[in-house]
Amino acid sequence: MKDPRRDNKVDIATRVMSRNDSFAARNHELLRSNDILTLNIISSPGAGKTSLLEAMAGFFGPGLAVIEGDVRTRRDAERVEKAGCKAYQIETGGSCHLDAEAVGKALEHFDLTDGELSILAIENVGNLICPSGYDLGEDMKVGLLSTPEGDDKVLKYPSLFSRIAVLVINKTDLLPMLDFDVDRAVRECRSLNPNVVVFLMSARTGEGVEEFCRFLKGQAELEE
Amino acid sequence: MKDPRRDNKVDIATRVMSRNDSFAARNHELLRSNDILTLNIISSPGAGKTSLLEAMAGFFGPGLAVIEGDVRTRRDAERVEKAGCKAYQIETGGSCHLDAEAVGKALEHFDLTDGELSILAIENVGNLICPSGYDLGEDMKVGLLSTPEGDDKVLKYPSLFSRIAVLVINKTDLLPMLDFDVDRAVRECRSLNPNVVVFLMSARTGEGVEEFCRFLKGQAELEE
Repeated sequence: MKDPRRDNKVDIATRVMSRNDSFAARNHELLRSNDILTLNIISSPGAGKTSLLEAMAGFFGPGLAVIEGDVRTRRDAERVEKAGCKAYQIETGGSCHLDAEAVGKALEHFDLTDGELSILAIENVGNLICPSGYDLGEDMKVGLLSTPEGDDKVLKYPSLFSRIAVLVINKTDLLPMLDFDVDRAVRECRSLNPNVVVFLMSARTGEGVEEFCRFLKGQAELEE
Repeated sequence: MKDPRRDNKVDIATRVMSRNDSFAARNHELLRSNDILTLNIISSPGAGKTSLLEAMAGFFGPGLAVIEGDVRTRRDAERVEKAGCKAYQIETGGSCHLDAEAVGKALEHFDLTDGELSILAIENVGNLICPSGYDLGEDMKVGLLSTPEGDDKVLKYPSLFSRIAVLVINKTDLLPMLDFDVDRAVRECRSLNPNVVVFLMSARTGEGVEEFCRFLKGQAELEE
């Protein structure tokens, strides 16, 4: 016999996703029509998303805008603004991921049409699971994996690592202290996702940051 | 005007939680009646939950049983079994947290009545947000925060850090390489949660592990 409660749940989940997808399509069109390359940056808490954005602000200056997602606090937006680019904070108030509607509202706080902006980076809530299923209207998902998390995380969180266009392995400065096998992480990511582009980085020391930023600049120019 | 879709969502969320709570109560009664102290261990991916359990297996031996929660792979259960205690793996298949029903089914794989078992540790899915809202029937939630994640994480994830009985700050061996302020993390955790018990630990080097295990042993004896 059918379980009406279960059917009801699935039905609502489908409606939530299709509602999200229509907001995502709207965001995507708005951003593309203004030649803005949009990144959805996803990682565990503390893998270094905000440090990466601070480093990117140093490279791109006012050509970069940032939307910060956090359950609570405005700390990340304040850090990124100090580093020299415009930032807007979404406090999700308990929700474990950003959704496209909230991003659409955040976009109203930026001037997208003045031609200065070439990259929008959306820092998602620190979580390897839930954010991966919500399209925000981005051109690419960027997954950060920090070396202290361990080289076994890719196959444990396949919904994210199979969907990213770019894998950044961050905190390479800690490698001498850890048993992290870079080759294993890259190999396992490619087994899910053969075309993933990989960068090794220490956002803290700056290693690999310029290479990553040059890659983004090239992608942004291709979109113009 | 009322939004019937929203009401429907809230209604279903309430039913899901009350269903979970009744399974949690059943687990709790079963475990307490067998004098087993039960921990629900929650952290970000890669904060060191499994390394901690390996170290605990060394201390407690067959007095410890472990339930492992992961989105995918049996890697963690295999690691913990090798360290000398019985382990059962729940693969959540995409879900971002364990629930009490799944834990109840996992309990059927252990002999709870032979008097050997004094502690059950449930390793939740690596996620600082979603697991904190689901009671599994545990006696206490243990939150792990690893130093490379940063000392700002407590106030960013208040739903977890306000609910834990024990905070373990792990990977203290990396402190000389990082800007992690232990006092700040402890102070911010106590601001949410004045009675939290704090341990500093490096599960990798063993620092602080025995102190933590002795504390658990004391708590388990109190329950007998």
